[in-house]
Amino acid sequence: MKLLIDLSFVGTNYCGWQKQKNKLTVQEVVTDAAKKLFGFDCDITGCSRTDSGVHANKFCATVAKKGENALQTTVPTEKIPRAFNNFLPEDVAVNGARFVAEDFHPRYSVIFKEYVYLIYDRAERDPFSSKRCWHVSHEFDDKAVEKMNAAAAYLVGKHDFCAFMAAGSKIEDTVRTVKYTEVVRDGGFIKLRIAADGFLYNMVRIITGTLVEVGYGKLAPEKIAEIIEGRDRRAAGRTAPPDGLYLNEVIY
Amino acid sequence: MKLLIDLSFVGTNYCGWQKQKNKLTVQEVVTDAAKKLFGFDCDITGCSRTDSGVHANKFCATVAKKGENALQTTVPTEKIPRAFNNFLPEDVAVNGARFVAEDFHPRYSVIFKEYVYLIYDRAERDPFSSKRCWHVSHEFDDKAVEKMNAAAAYLVGKHDFCAFMAAGSKIEDTVRTVKYTEVVRDGGFIKLRIAADGFLYNMVRIITGTLVEVGYGKLAPEKIAEIIEGRDRRAAGRTAPPDGLYLNEVIY
Repeated sequence: MKLLIDLSFVGTNYCGWQKQKNKLTVQEVVTDAAKKLFGFDCDITGCSRTDSGVHANKFCATVAKKGENALQTTVPTEKIPRAFNNFLPEDVAVNGARFVAEDFHPRYSVIFKEYVYLIYDRAERDPFSSKRCWHVSHEFDDKAVEKMNAAAAYLVGKHDFCAFMAAGSKIEDTVRTVKYTEVVRDGGFIKLRIAADGFLYNMVRIITGTLVEVGYGKLAPEKIAEIIEGRDRRAAGRTAPPDGLYLNEVIY
Repeated sequence: MKLLIDLSFVGTNYCGWQKQKNKLTVQEVVTDAAKKLFGFDCDITGCSRTDSGVHANKFCATVAKKGENALQTTVPTEKIPRAFNNFLPEDVAVNGARFVAEDFHPRYSVIFKEYVYLIYDRAERDPFSSKRCWHVSHEFDDKAVEKMNAAAAYLVGKHDFCAFMAAGSKIEDTVRTVKYTEVVRDGGFIKLRIAADGFLYNMVRIITGTLVEVGYGKLAPEKIAEIIEGRDRRAAGRTAPPDGLYLNEVIY
C-alpha cells in the first residue's frame, strides 16, 4: 500500500509542481515535509504537472518510501493531514489522506480532472484576487457570458485538440475527451469549469483566451467547432495567464 | 474642494495605515502614488488607523495638496481610480473618487463604520485564506453560531466599551454606539459583522475573541452584558489576530 494525499496550494510563489534545480516547487516542499513526517526519504508523485503560478483546490499525489512503491508508517491515517501541515508552508495544505494499492498511479489512474479558470471582469482591480484570477478591464454582460458558455459547449466530446495546445509541444496523441464545460457569472468573476480525461499543454489557458474573444464579440460561438477541426494553433485565441487557473477536482 | 477616495487593500504586507518611519504603510504608498498622479506632494488623511495586517474592503481617505485643504487637477474625476491604480502596488486599489467640501473630514465626518471579522473553523487550514482569516481548528456547529450571534446582540446600543479596549489605551471617552451586529456561517467561515459610530483600540478583535469563548461553550451569551457593565478588560476574551479583520464599510 502507498499513501494518496489531497493537497491544495496557492501557486503564486512556486515554479509549478514538478521539481526543478534552483527553483522552488510544490513537489519539493511536499517531499521535504514527508521526510520530516515519516523520518525517511520519500518519492512524491503528482497527478499533473501544474505550471508556474497555477493553483490547486484539489491536487492528488502519492507518497512512497524512496525507491520502493509502498509506505509503512505508525501515524494513524486520519492524523496524517494535520501532521503533514505542521511541516508545510502556509500556502500548501494536505486536506485528506488514504492508502491505495501499489498499482495505483496518481496520473495514469485518473478518470477525469476538472479545472476552473477565473476571469475578473471589472474596470478596477481587486487587491484580494491579485494573482488569483485574470483581470480583464472589459465587463462582460449576460449575453456575452451566454455566448462564452455556448462556445465552450462545442468543446465537449472526443476531439483532436491540437489547436488548443502550446506550439512546440512534443505530444503525439492530441485526442482528448472533454466531459463537460460551463461558463457562468459568479459575482465579479466569470468562472469556466472544464473536465476532461486529460489536458494538453496550456489547453485550458488557450481555451480561456479563445472564449474571451467570443465574449468580446470578435468570434462567433460556433467558430469553436471550426477551430477544433482546423487543428491550427494560430486560429485559437491567446494563452490566458496562469494566475486564473485552478486544478479543482481529480476523479479516480 | 478636496478629493475623497475609496480604497481596498490586503493588509498583510503593511504595518497598518498610518505612516511610520522605516516601515511600509498603506498611507505611504497612497501618498507616493498621489504625487506621481497629480505632480505635487499631497496630504492623505484616512478614515481610521488600521493595525498591521488588517485588511480593508472599503477604506476612505481624502487627498489634498500638501499644506492646503484642497486639490486642483485636470484629471477627470471618473478617470482618477484607474489613474491612481497605475501607481499603486497590486495589493492596494482605488475603487472610487469624488470631490467633497473642505470641511469634510474622513474620520470626524463618519456616521458609522462596519467591520467584518472572518473566522475559519475547519480542522485543516485553507492555503487561500492564509493571513486573511483567523484559523481555529475547532468546528462550530449551528447551535454555537446561534449562541455567538445572540451574544453579539448584547453589544448593540450605547455603552461604555472599556472592557473591550486594549489595556494601556489612553482614550478617555470609551462610550460608543454599536448600530448592529451579526454572526453567521458562510461556508467554512464564521462571519461577524459589526457597525458602530466609532471603535476603541482592538475593540473588534477583543469582541471576536470573546465571542469565540461563547462558541466554545465557555461563556453564556448573556454574560456579554455583565462584561460590558463590569468595564474590566480581564473579563473579556483574548484579542483575536489582525488577519481576520476587514474594514468593510464607511458611511458618511
